[in-house]
Amino acid sequence: MNRSQQLDQVFAALAHPTRRAILSRLAEQDANVNELAEPFDMSLPAISKHLQVLEKAGLITKEKKAQFRPCRLVPEPLEAVSAWTEQYRRIWEARFDAMDDILKEMKDPSHE
Amino acid sequence: MNRSQQLDQVFAALAHPTRRAILSRLAEQDANVNELAEPFDMSLPAISKHLQVLEKAGLITKEKKAQFRPCRLVPEPLEAVSAWTEQYRRIWEARFDAMDDILKEMKDPSHE
Repeated sequence: MNRSQQLDQVFAALAHPTRRAILSRLAEQDANVNELAEPFDMSLPAISKHLQVLEKAGLITKEKKAQFRPCRLVPEPLEAVSAWTEQYRRIWEARFDAMDDILKEMKDPSHE
Repeated sequence: MNRSQQLDQVFAALAHPTRRAILSRLAEQDANVNELAEPFDMSLPAISKHLQVLEKAGLITKEKKAQFRPCRLVPEPLEAVSAWTEQYRRIWEARFDAMDDILKEMKDPSHE
């Protein structure tokens, strides 16, 4: 799987509020499927399906040997997403600067 | 549509290499459907479908009145994605720091 295909899977995995909430929960502490299912009022199979999507995208790992079977967040794909957005930073910053200039001009028309 | 639903749509829109390539192209300059279709060797309807997904997610706007009908990048949703990833920054940075310590320890076992 190349880098672009990895990004496809990561973005697709992030396109669901439950999966983003699971990541947010795992950012605090590792948790197993039962613990993750609790706040969502979802069936274990439904949660397991979301976990599979997250695992396939490389966003979590599941410890298979331990009795507790905790899930753990893997932050690297989130850093890849952050790095990907950075190429557009100059565009949104330029847009904000332009808006800022317009607001200044509106407040003080004599402003140069 | 609330903020979470917007993020759903933006992440889903970004989960395709052609749509990411279209955004990259529009980051350089506004372009119409014909210009966007050219480098991808895709049919106009196929490109139009991708543009619809991007437009629905708020990532581009299409000028409907001008004869040229250019598409324009809207950077705000990308900034929202960047801001969303920021909450995980401390996690990936802590992970890299830990890895760094291990590498230093391997190179120089007397290092404290």
